[in-house]
Amino acid sequence: MNLNIVLFQPEIPQNTGNIGRTCVLTDCKLHLIKPLGFSLEEKQLKRAGLDYWPFLDLEIHDSYEALREKYKDATFYYSTTKASKLYSEVEYKKGDFIIFGRESSGLPDSVRDSDPERCIRVPMINTTTRSLNLSNTVAITTYEALRQVGFPEMK
Amino acid sequence: MNLNIVLFQPEIPQNTGNIGRTCVLTDCKLHLIKPLGFSLEEKQLKRAGLDYWPFLDLEIHDSYEALREKYKDATFYYSTTKASKLYSEVEYKKGDFIIFGRESSGLPDSVRDSDPERCIRVPMINTTTRSLNLSNTVAITTYEALRQVGFPEMK
Repeated sequence: MNLNIVLFQPEIPQNTGNIGRTCVLTDCKLHLIKPLGFSLEEKQLKRAGLDYWPFLDLEIHDSYEALREKYKDATFYYSTTKASKLYSEVEYKKGDFIIFGRESSGLPDSVRDSDPERCIRVPMINTTTRSLNLSNTVAITTYEALRQVGFPEMK
Repeated sequence: MNLNIVLFQPEIPQNTGNIGRTCVLTDCKLHLIKPLGFSLEEKQLKRAGLDYWPFLDLEIHDSYEALREKYKDATFYYSTTKASKLYSEVEYKKGDFIIFGRESSGLPDSVRDSDPERCIRVPMINTTTRSLNLSNTVAITTYEALRQVGFPEMK
């Protein structure tokens, strides 16, 4: 297993489906933190994840605290538009966790503020409101981490 | 303008919408090669592109040949699962063109075979059939090129 991708209370099933597909294709484990904005049975989720969904290494957590308690010794990174470091400026290693916030509101301050040195952002042209689609942000960050560790088992 | 992103006969409006959004947020120009599998007025396209669509620097080309004729002196890269080089193994510069194939069938052999040295692929775990979502492939490749050139004007 290469990396752990965590979605904090995701809201849009297509995004989670797409991210699941990316996880299968990169040998990453997907963690979802409840509450989810959709049912795991939803058609849109399975459609975006395509025939990959059954192959996904998936873990559901009742809360952020439950996840942290379970993986006490792991290194966590926090993807947020409010980070001072770029996603390409940290050194990832296999087994690291990268947490992504909700589509509408990102990560809560309490999560972000707990470890500012490990907050990372994907740079963009300055606009007033919106940012990249969540599934794209995950893909960009995951592939930078995979590039750094040499794309293990990937062809 | 940072890069030129080209979609060769794209089929799915949500993908093109999402890619348009990524282009606006990275100061890239989007080129679409006809025929398109959707109308540029389609709701799904605008929904995925959100409020960004009006700000997109967009050029529509009647054919691949017309695009090449118009940008004779540019450097072109070809994203294809059949490339021997990884997308992270080439050196991009500002103004380069990166061409992505159709969701269903990728780039035609004639396009790919014209310049094998500039064919690039995004590595994946070996599976029998499917690959990454097109919008994710574009985001991953575009951000690697942007990383190499120092994320100009991006914050």
